[in-house]
Amino acid sequence: MIPVETIGVVKSPRVDATDDDWGDVIATIELNDNFDASALDGLEEFSHAEIFFHLHRVAPESIQRATRHPRGNPAYPAVGIFAQRGRARPNRLAATMVEIVSRAGRALTVRGLDAIDGSPVVDIKPVIREFLPRTPVREPEWARDLMRNYWKKGGSK
Amino acid sequence: MIPVETIGVVKSPRVDATDDDWGDVIATIELNDNFDASALDGLEEFSHAEIFFHLHRVAPESIQRATRHPRGNPAYPAVGIFAQRGRARPNRLAATMVEIVSRAGRALTVRGLDAIDGSPVVDIKPVIREFLPRTPVREPEWARDLMRNYWKKGGSK
Repeated sequence: MIPVETIGVVKSPRVDATDDDWGDVIATIELNDNFDASALDGLEEFSHAEIFFHLHRVAPESIQRATRHPRGNPAYPAVGIFAQRGRARPNRLAATMVEIVSRAGRALTVRGLDAIDGSPVVDIKPVIREFLPRTPVREPEWARDLMRNYWKKGGSK
Repeated sequence: MIPVETIGVVKSPRVDATDDDWGDVIATIELNDNFDASALDGLEEFSHAEIFFHLHRVAPESIQRATRHPRGNPAYPAVGIFAQRGRARPNRLAATMVEIVSRAGRALTVRGLDAIDGSPVVDIKPVIREFLPRTPVREPEWARDLMRNYWKKGGSK
């Protein structure tokens, strides 16, 4: 086992892990007070950050270790848990790229974070363009369909 | 503490965590045998995956919790550890988007993984276009400079 500490917590108006409409959610990550606020210095120079958090409300007994239909939807093919981004996954780690709205002391406010209130944060990294895919991205049709309303009111349509 | 299990291991020709030239590295992730191989089913439908791994060779006492100069280079501004992607970070978790080359049983072969041989893998997620930034990405000049030779022989120049 790899011990992973919580570095902060998500404060969000969203308290339920519903599937869609995350694009306009404004949430704040509050860094734990065993960190100096300076650990966030310079993030405001970036437009986006990747937030790593623990899906702490997913019941351990629901975790899939083989295949499942994404969202439990039989219209989507049953694919491996590592070929989807569903929550009920080993280690229950999530990673989401968000827009940085503002930063004040230990508080980082972001747009489009699909984490419920109280989610433990385990890392924050800036989005660096050169770390994004450098060749064209291809994905199956089911993935595009599944994402149709995920951000909805937010950036992409 | 959040207990995180190793789900697989990186097999790579790279054994040292040197800073540059990762773009053409071909590595294989071998899923642990307590997973069914089907956990990777369907990944071949995606062009890219995001690999989450533990930077297990970073000495715990070297971890930064406030600010540092990226790469220890005084020409770069001292920024918070969460405003850079450097290795000596709390939880020593790395996340890198790679090209999927092939998949056979429990083995996933990828291009451009900046993990040394033996790195414990803690998650694999497909890259879904709608999960990439949906607004323009802005980054400071130091970040672009630092990445100049990171992939070099690979995708971006």
